[in-house]
Amino acid sequence: MHEHADEHIIERLLTDNEQLASHNREHFDALGCFVINLMSAPGAGKTSLIAQTAPALKETLDLTVIEGDMVGDLDVQRLKEAQIKAFQISTGRSCHLDAAMVARLLHSKEMPTSDLVFIENVGNLVCPAEFPLGEHRRVVLLSVTEGDDKPLKYPVIFRNCDVVILTKCDLMPYVEFDKERLKRAIRGLNPEAKLFEISAKTGFGMDEWLDWIRTQCSVFQADRKKHRSEAFMNL
Amino acid sequence: MHEHADEHIIERLLTDNEQLASHNREHFDALGCFVINLMSAPGAGKTSLIAQTAPALKETLDLTVIEGDMVGDLDVQRLKEAQIKAFQISTGRSCHLDAAMVARLLHSKEMPTSDLVFIENVGNLVCPAEFPLGEHRRVVLLSVTEGDDKPLKYPVIFRNCDVVILTKCDLMPYVEFDKERLKRAIRGLNPEAKLFEISAKTGFGMDEWLDWIRTQCSVFQADRKKHRSEAFMNL
Repeated sequence: MHEHADEHIIERLLTDNEQLASHNREHFDALGCFVINLMSAPGAGKTSLIAQTAPALKETLDLTVIEGDMVGDLDVQRLKEAQIKAFQISTGRSCHLDAAMVARLLHSKEMPTSDLVFIENVGNLVCPAEFPLGEHRRVVLLSVTEGDDKPLKYPVIFRNCDVVILTKCDLMPYVEFDKERLKRAIRGLNPEAKLFEISAKTGFGMDEWLDWIRTQCSVFQADRKKHRSEAFMNL
Repeated sequence: MHEHADEHIIERLLTDNEQLASHNREHFDALGCFVINLMSAPGAGKTSLIAQTAPALKETLDLTVIEGDMVGDLDVQRLKEAQIKAFQISTGRSCHLDAAMVARLLHSKEMPTSDLVFIENVGNLVCPAEFPLGEHRRVVLLSVTEGDDKPLKYPVIFRNCDVVILTKCDLMPYVEFDKERLKRAIRGLNPEAKLFEISAKTGFGMDEWLDWIRTQCSVFQADRKKHRSEAFMNL
């Protein structure tokens, strides 16, 4: 976000984005795709988390990944090598994905339908927080090497999320990180947020995260079924 | 940067910013302040580097720090506790400092003159690259925990800098990081960039960084003296 752009231009951008995000959400609902927007600073481990999550879910959930990067397709290549369906969005100069970029991909018909879609946002703790994409849940990753003060310095993204994942917990013995301070900061901003502690490298904490995803997807599918049957009853 | 803002608005923003950055640079030159813009992802260790650098320089160079954060003044408090002069700029929703924010601080007369000014930008590898502030040198920090692929994913900031500092090198034994891959990527984007490897925690590599700062400040002061004496001769 730029301070010196006219305020009304920024407001128009955000309003347009919210409308398009609602449109994307209707698309995803109609397709039966449960969508998670993964946000973090660069290098917090979003791609590693996806690469560890996908094989554990593949028996029960079909997964597609949308990768947002300024340039290149390093992450898409990495995921494809691991047999994960992945689609690139190049954001160019933009420091975040926006709903229009996701809408273009949705309308291109390239993207297959799947039970679960991970959108890996551009590595940035500021602007992705203000640009919903049509997702059902928002997950913020924070690695233990980034420091326990980050929610206090980047409050918007931690306030507007459903889950915080503390990543790279295998490095905890080698860094100064006060987990209680982190928890207090998150509780102060967002008491409803769930906190998972994970190491994608060692597998530590992965089960709770996988259980959460499975539950969210089941509830989503049950709700869809209920709405469809209600709509049928009202015909 | 927002993809869906009109292109001409973005260009106007960047042009206005460059003009103000030149104005800031003239201010800093007139005051004899050598200014370094420190940029990185959140949690790469900018404040730790400053906190370790300041005591080592204090016999010879007077230092002021300008801290850019969305909200709060955690880093300013931390630096003040370490007896370092520090001034806060709160960027609000903005994901980067811009030249106008720095100009306001310069014009407020609050800021003392000093030999060396560190500007600690908002943690972000995208937009700070496009908003010069009037600095003499641009330094990008990358921690070993963020991964060796970052220059390829965030090329603009690595292309437009004078120095890359690889931070948290004490964690190198515990992460997968291919230093040769990093060096190749930096050389490909920016062959002139210097690379320092540092651990602010252990002190590893600090001497080379301190020597570089001292040399840069000496050359800056010698140039000023030469220009003043040339101006005098031309009277």
